[in-house]
Amino acid sequence: MASEQASVEAPAAIEKYSKRVVLETLLGRSDGGVGLIGQRVVIGGWVKSSREFRKEPVFPAPEVVGSKDASCVEVLQTRLPFFRSILKVLGIGELRIHDKLDSVVPKPPQASISILLISDGSCVPSLQVLVDSALAPPSIVMPTGTCIHAEGILQKPSLQGKQILEFKAETILYIGEVDHNRYPLSKKRVPLESLRDLSHFRPRTTTVASVMRIRNALTQATHKFLLENGFLNVQVPIITRTDCEGFSENFLVTTLLGNAGTEDQSSAGDTWGVKLESIKASIKEKSKKIEELQRTESNKEALASATHDHKKATELASQLEEKLKAKIGKPMQTVKVDFSKDFFSSKTILTVSGRLHLESYACALGNVYSFGPRFRANKNYSNKSLSEMWIAELEMAFSQIEDSMDCANDFLKFICKWILENCTEDLKFIAKRVDKSVVDRLQFIVTSPFEKVSYTEAVDALKKVTEKKFGEKVEWGALLSEEHKSYLTEEIYKKPLVIYNQPKELEPFYVRLNDDGRTVASFETIVPKVGTLIRGSQKEERLNMLNTRIKELGLDNQQYEWYLDLHKHGVARCSGFSFLLDPLVLYATGLNDARDAVPFPRSFGKANN
Amino acid sequence: MASEQASVEAPAAIEKYSKRVVLETLLGRSDGGVGLIGQRVVIGGWVKSSREFRKEPVFPAPEVVGSKDASCVEVLQTRLPFFRSILKVLGIGELRIHDKLDSVVPKPPQASISILLISDGSCVPSLQVLVDSALAPPSIVMPTGTCIHAEGILQKPSLQGKQILEFKAETILYIGEVDHNRYPLSKKRVPLESLRDLSHFRPRTTTVASVMRIRNALTQATHKFLLENGFLNVQVPIITRTDCEGFSENFLVTTLLGNAGTEDQSSAGDTWGVKLESIKASIKEKSKKIEELQRTESNKEALASATHDHKKATELASQLEEKLKAKIGKPMQTVKVDFSKDFFSSKTILTVSGRLHLESYACALGNVYSFGPRFRANKNYSNKSLSEMWIAELEMAFSQIEDSMDCANDFLKFICKWILENCTEDLKFIAKRVDKSVVDRLQFIVTSPFEKVSYTEAVDALKKVTEKKFGEKVEWGALLSEEHKSYLTEEIYKKPLVIYNQPKELEPFYVRLNDDGRTVASFETIVPKVGTLIRGSQKEERLNMLNTRIKELGLDNQQYEWYLDLHKHGVARCSGFSFLLDPLVLYATGLNDARDAVPFPRSFGKANN
Repeated sequence: MASEQASVEAPAAIEKYSKRVVLETLLGRSDGGVGLIGQRVVIGGWVKSSREFRKEPVFPAPEVVGSKDASCVEVLQTRLPFFRSILKVLGIGELRIHDKLDSVVPKPPQASISILLISDGSCVPSLQVLVDSALAPPSIVMPTGTCIHAEGILQKPSLQGKQILEFKAETILYIGEVDHNRYPLSKKRVPLESLRDLSHFRPRTTTVASVMRIRNALTQATHKFLLENGFLNVQVPIITRTDCEGFSENFLVTTLLGNAGTEDQSSAGDTWGVKLESIKASIKEKSKKIEELQRTESNKEALASATHDHKKATELASQLEEKLKAKIGKPMQTVKVDFSKDFFSSKTILTVSGRLHLESYACALGNVYSFGPRFRANKNYSNKSLSEMWIAELEMAFSQIEDSMDCANDFLKFICKWILENCTEDLKFIAKRVDKSVVDRLQFIVTSPFEKVSYTEAVDALKKVTEKKFGEKVEWGALLSEEHKSYLTEEIYKKPLVIYNQPKELEPFYVRLNDDGRTVASFETIVPKVGTLIRGSQKEERLNMLNTRIKELGLDNQQYEWYLDLHKHGVARCSGFSFLLDPLVLYATGLNDARDAVPFPRSFGKANN
Repeated sequence: MASEQASVEAPAAIEKYSKRVVLETLLGRSDGGVGLIGQRVVIGGWVKSSREFRKEPVFPAPEVVGSKDASCVEVLQTRLPFFRSILKVLGIGELRIHDKLDSVVPKPPQASISILLISDGSCVPSLQVLVDSALAPPSIVMPTGTCIHAEGILQKPSLQGKQILEFKAETILYIGEVDHNRYPLSKKRVPLESLRDLSHFRPRTTTVASVMRIRNALTQATHKFLLENGFLNVQVPIITRTDCEGFSENFLVTTLLGNAGTEDQSSAGDTWGVKLESIKASIKEKSKKIEELQRTESNKEALASATHDHKKATELASQLEEKLKAKIGKPMQTVKVDFSKDFFSSKTILTVSGRLHLESYACALGNVYSFGPRFRANKNYSNKSLSEMWIAELEMAFSQIEDSMDCANDFLKFICKWILENCTEDLKFIAKRVDKSVVDRLQFIVTSPFEKVSYTEAVDALKKVTEKKFGEKVEWGALLSEEHKSYLTEEIYKKPLVIYNQPKELEPFYVRLNDDGRTVASFETIVPKVGTLIRGSQKEERLNMLNTRIKELGLDNQQYEWYLDLHKHGVARCSGFSFLLDPLVLYATGLNDARDAVPFPRSFGKANN
């Protein structure tokens, strides 16, 4: 019957290069793969969970058969082919008949079947895989995390349960074993926090795999929207001399320390450091005590003793300080560095933003974009922004701030719609396991008209709020806090919000000054849960304004020479925006920490691999 | 007539956000845009070249009109509206009639029309744009590089010439002026070498714009192939602790020098350095001379003089050395650095390759890829590989080297075909201006069957060559030189070549050791002109082999701990490859230097912006 069905159905889709059936193309079918029953395929995946099925011999074990029981022997002899085939199917071992029936082969091997649920990372559901102990011992194939690559037959489930399809292995192609005493994952759920130090294993969990597939879809949709709208992809530099914003701490890129020895990392220095700090604190206290005693003139002895104490402590402190200096040497921060001897003959940093570089390409090619990593050496912990982030940036010549706002809205709607249409199964799983409002939230962006509100209006609206006390005061000129933003979008306007015309002090030098002289042509798109998803602006095209802004912000204008040069020669009016991928992944998955949504997160103190 | 045509034709395609007509959608039409004549549109672009058309007054200039010529005045008065409109159309200025006809306004303004060819970077051809001097003075709009943003009418060319369509400006929306005494581009062709320091202007040249559009298409096709074949995009880290190959020099990422002062950059130190080198060379020579004189014992005076010279030079050298030391201080290379105090609490570098990180994702999600920047602090000049390169890397679980070779071949064929089909106009231009064989070369990849040759066979084939003498000797175990590679693909096999099973010494530790114990399961795809386009391999899945290889290569295995951990727990057999974008851009554009094919090239000593 199985082969009958197979002849009607198209054969299973075989992945062209690894020549296996990707589980998504099997289990993701509308019939769950049942239509492919009977087909011989290759599968590969990792064990999520497993159990063992020990076979009970259905017939009297062969050893009971002997010459004493003549009738039985007779039956055995006449029905030999039948018994043999039965025993073979059950995997109990072959019945070998010797010359003398007395010596029929004894004891069948301890036979069992490993029943595995395996996933290959292509979809949420797992496939039930049967591996006979004759093919591979249960102790090898059963541990969670084991990699199984096998050829076999798709069949009806041989055991009752939820499964509607199973795969019976016939040839094992490869097994990637697990040292199950040390393997950090198990069939039980491991909290996301515990997985953060396991970036090389965590995509094997169903949740992280789903998140990564959604992240992939968002990446794909980003390129798709931009290419369909005629933007050219321009790869802006990662190593740069230009600090695009002048606001944040940068990572230096250098080969000056390339061959530097790593200092003996014994913590002696640190211990002394801690000691020194505590001694200094005690010196301060002792000084206070002495002052007090001097003021009161109450106890000369006490004063002498306190002065002695103070002196001793001061001596100890200076000794420790000497030791520390000898240990650490000149602190690196104060070393004079000759960057003209560095690899690029100048000081270079990891790019914070490619907007300036992109603008120069927009001023030649029109609409351009870039999608790549950007960096901030930000020591403040934030669950939404890491030190290394993928950001899509676009720039349009002949456009103004309104144009970019419209483009940003369409862009967000497009990619959220894309996820809803292309990640249905993953969103279902996420809704069940992580956050049940995830689909509604995506729909919210797709269907809501975005509200455009000026910064000033937003501040006024927040000032009118009486039913809530904010952690930070609402004040014109200050950054809106996360709390302010979420109140605006969730409570006041109940829509995705575009806040525009921010105070100039809050924005980079390149944003166009408005006629009021106080605000600039910038905007940010704010949504519930994660706050800012997009930051955009119209660029300042007027050279004199740019110079003034660079001066006002106290920036070193040498690094912007090329950018100022651009503004002397045929600059266009440009606008554009930056789209932050990580917060949107959080928005679309319900997760709360970007470290769970980025394949290999980088944050202060952490770059594991 | 114009409006008649316009009513038949669909309106011009308006770019949704900047609301202009992108020139490609106009000039790239099969009718070159003629069908849109009569339509009012907005255009934007940069002046490539220009000329001025001075209008000759067609009627007697108004000053000849006066009361002395009564009949003329009569005519003028009766036909006043007609004359006025004529003068207005010609832009000669308005005829104002005063109370007394004697004082009719004299001399018309010096009227002219600027005829500009402008490009907006969307396609090769330019649009002819007419700007009347009444709208904007020629001195402002005519310099090459000027940015023009205007609304106007598409019309039949008013002057004879090659153009079949022109745009007559009616409203100037914006002009981005050029300081034409300082603007480095002109309407004449500027050599590519001279453009390298002008990365912010050079996409305005037709050649670089074409190259960047082809680069964009290659980038797009790369994502397209991989997504269509079910690969998931995984963003591997840029900042990493893992030197994936252990072969090349790395860039360090640090904040330890973040606030470091920049040393006085006077070149005194450098001058001394150069001096010192030349003195040292002369000392060497003098030593040789002394040795020679001592050996021959021919001339005692000469020996004494040579010895004296030698002594003087040695003294000078040591003085200079002292000075240099004082100047530079302790060389940074020997400073002991405590990386535990760095931003990530450990030594971090810019990634050389994401293959190891990808493998861990392949061992969970199956087929994965990454497309992003990779870095090598390589001081040797190479015209094909820069310090910062975009590389696509993919990894497939459950696959072996043959699978990756097949995938690499299909991939290359796909993207070359894509370029041929989607960049026709750019390729035509490139063929005319840069390299006429460019289309044939792309066809060569699309249509040739790729030849698979083992490294050993390739070496044997080269050894048999008698008609050519190679710069570097052909020897089993040595890297094939560029010359060897091009001879193999161009002369011997005359096909794109896949060379596989290289000697293990030439490949990274993670490549699978073959059974011969001498070669590994690696491959590279070689084509004429640029050599290697792809490097691939099957990964070593056996933990003990990995450990041995790490030891053999003398690598610090602490950084690979996580990778070794992966190989203890459910590792799959994986294979994959890295695709180098820059050489393919050279291949598809006929350029010879990657610095001309990368938007903002980074190489030893050069990071301009």
